[in-house]
Amino acid sequence: MKMLIKNANVISMDQKREKYEENVDILINNNIIEKIGKNIQVESDVKIIDATGKIVMPGLINTHAHISMSIFRETLDGYGLQQWLEEKIWPMEDKLTNEDIYYATYLSCIEMIKTGCTTINDMYFMTDDIIKATTETGVRIQTTRTLMSNNPEERLEDLKRLIDKYKNNELVSFNAGIHGLYTTNEDDTKKFIEFAKENNLLAHIHFCENSKEVEDIKKDYNVNSPVDVLKKYFTEIPTILAHAVKLTKKEIEELATLKNISVSHCPVSNLKLGCGVAKIQEMVEQNINVTLGTDGQGSGSNLDMFETMKFTALLQKGINENPKDLPAYEVIKMATINGAKALGLEKNIGSIEEGKCADIIIVNLDTSVTKPINNIFADIVYNAKGTNVETTIINGKIVMENRMINCLNEGEIYDKCEKIIKRITM
Amino acid sequence: MKMLIKNANVISMDQKREKYEENVDILINNNIIEKIGKNIQVESDVKIIDATGKIVMPGLINTHAHISMSIFRETLDGYGLQQWLEEKIWPMEDKLTNEDIYYATYLSCIEMIKTGCTTINDMYFMTDDIIKATTETGVRIQTTRTLMSNNPEERLEDLKRLIDKYKNNELVSFNAGIHGLYTTNEDDTKKFIEFAKENNLLAHIHFCENSKEVEDIKKDYNVNSPVDVLKKYFTEIPTILAHAVKLTKKEIEELATLKNISVSHCPVSNLKLGCGVAKIQEMVEQNINVTLGTDGQGSGSNLDMFETMKFTALLQKGINENPKDLPAYEVIKMATINGAKALGLEKNIGSIEEGKCADIIIVNLDTSVTKPINNIFADIVYNAKGTNVETTIINGKIVMENRMINCLNEGEIYDKCEKIIKRITM
Repeated sequence: MKMLIKNANVISMDQKREKYEENVDILINNNIIEKIGKNIQVESDVKIIDATGKIVMPGLINTHAHISMSIFRETLDGYGLQQWLEEKIWPMEDKLTNEDIYYATYLSCIEMIKTGCTTINDMYFMTDDIIKATTETGVRIQTTRTLMSNNPEERLEDLKRLIDKYKNNELVSFNAGIHGLYTTNEDDTKKFIEFAKENNLLAHIHFCENSKEVEDIKKDYNVNSPVDVLKKYFTEIPTILAHAVKLTKKEIEELATLKNISVSHCPVSNLKLGCGVAKIQEMVEQNINVTLGTDGQGSGSNLDMFETMKFTALLQKGINENPKDLPAYEVIKMATINGAKALGLEKNIGSIEEGKCADIIIVNLDTSVTKPINNIFADIVYNAKGTNVETTIINGKIVMENRMINCLNEGEIYDKCEKIIKRITM
Repeated sequence: MKMLIKNANVISMDQKREKYEENVDILINNNIIEKIGKNIQVESDVKIIDATGKIVMPGLINTHAHISMSIFRETLDGYGLQQWLEEKIWPMEDKLTNEDIYYATYLSCIEMIKTGCTTINDMYFMTDDIIKATTETGVRIQTTRTLMSNNPEERLEDLKRLIDKYKNNELVSFNAGIHGLYTTNEDDTKKFIEFAKENNLLAHIHFCENSKEVEDIKKDYNVNSPVDVLKKYFTEIPTILAHAVKLTKKEIEELATLKNISVSHCPVSNLKLGCGVAKIQEMVEQNINVTLGTDGQGSGSNLDMFETMKFTALLQKGINENPKDLPAYEVIKMATINGAKALGLEKNIGSIEEGKCADIIIVNLDTSVTKPINNIFADIVYNAKGTNVETTIINGKIVMENRMINCLNEGEIYDKCEKIIKRITM
């Protein structure tokens, strides 16, 4: 199956350059970008998508979330973190069934497709049901069986089973998702890292989200800094640190000496939970690979990566009192190619290049909130919203065209999710 | 002309309570909300708007902007404030014609109507052309001839002329818009305040936006704190302070002792210009009337008040590291009734009450980003976007229905604005 995107204004960045090219055609053959060029001629049976005047860019990559938490949206307002977890989230999570996880994930898949996110790095439980929903809707996922010191062996066995079960699913990959150093003891951390090395997996871990966590890690691992634990155990495998809010300038400098560390910056969740603002500008200056995440909707509200780009760009400028911090193209890199690199998928996704998978979104900037266009990168970061995404293509398949999505009835999914939350709050 | 909004789920707050009521009808007679109640019966010729399942709330009130700056959207990226003004904005502003101002304002009116903002407090120049655009599109405006120590007498004369010219325009009111203490000397400040008192106007002034401004005021007015100037001259007229970023906790306490002071918090602009984050939580604790603004699009990017609500709610939580700061309903008050109070219009707008003007928006929360609804106030603040607004009514007139807007062709307006910015950057 071939498909041609005509007259695209393409934004696509690799690690070394920013790129914007007008009026090019993109030929897709099955799931692969076969050719990019001017006036590509094709047979009459090739599906044509006219992108005249539109922005075409790589699908956005969300490097940290818990997408089955869609149903917990806005349960946090007025609560402190611990109180919210103990009184609201944990009792509700205890009641979730496999079917609940499927529908809650399905809702998130619709949300992602409609806001231009094509790849998600997820960490939750009932992973089979999560994968069922992402595969049916066509969303690319990297996931795990969450690893922690509560039945560690069973969790490793299950992760092994998952890896084997989905080894032929092109949209699914796995990492060693270690919940956190404060929920995994030192012996188990060693075990999990060993497993990751043996299975050629990268690690994904909550890291220094808030002050209490930092204190817990120092005590449990008997270190002066949480970064010391990374230096001891995480040097041989690529690792994604979710949050990394509570790091000093010095700790960031040490972090930068480690190879293969990426940070998943989740600004909205970090603000909402009262954690603070990660020092992203310093990380960029230290050449740490910064990527973007939304976190689960329980704390992050939604999965809109455009909004996450905007918060990222603005927070650093405001907090550092420097409007020159984080130019827009730097933030677009975080949401695309940097994310791909963090997930070990940079050969397949993250930019629009011949030979890569066709994970592509088409964005309409012809609205009263985006016009006139004085700086295309800045308009994407500051004015485009998820709702500006018209068409979403994942692995060569059109999963949304002109805002119409191919899946179960959206209204039915909303109703299912309303019913789940009502039942589990009873 | 009568109109009935059926089955509305109404959010409306006055200063003392939060209010959410389901399935009520709102009868509008000409420009006034005549009756709110269950199952209101009307004649067959009354226009019916079915709001079943939708949120109906007061039109949002933007208390600080420069809406003719729409055309400067995203010219700031990568610049410092002073460099941006000197190299980009001022040379472009010098070239603006009356027609340019009309079209640039027109673009902003479309933007406001489409994002549910029904009242704008503006400060710019060529005020007649601004009013022409707001009146034609049906947007409510409070405006001024900007007052400063550059031809002060001429400016006062012009403001007098404007007040007289538009005294019968129900959508237009005026204030004494003093640009700033750093652009107005002490004698002129006294003159402007005297004028405001005589003409029964409130004052609107840029105040403590950044550190340099604070230092300039201290020097120019020979005071220890900019608040001292307010204590000396601004005690007898209600005053809106735009920004108020650089105030210490002690200065906020002093500010709270003054009567009739409102703050227009512009979080997005403050971040983007590298000014910082205003201490809004402290102001709320001191019972200062906090309202919300977007600032002009040159720094604020857009006029989406939903986004401004979200930034407001999240920034205080994150910066103060307290997720209990600013519950969602508090932020909705800022964007509605508090704004009306600041503009001296609380008898007419800011809430949905019998006898008030019908400035009403209908919001559709039936989307993948807002469902399920666990907390209606939080869903409005964190997940609704300007694009969720379906219908906008201002002063009893439907200016947008089901996203269709009654005005000049939108595409033509975009083209006009693209041409303006191209011409003035040549």
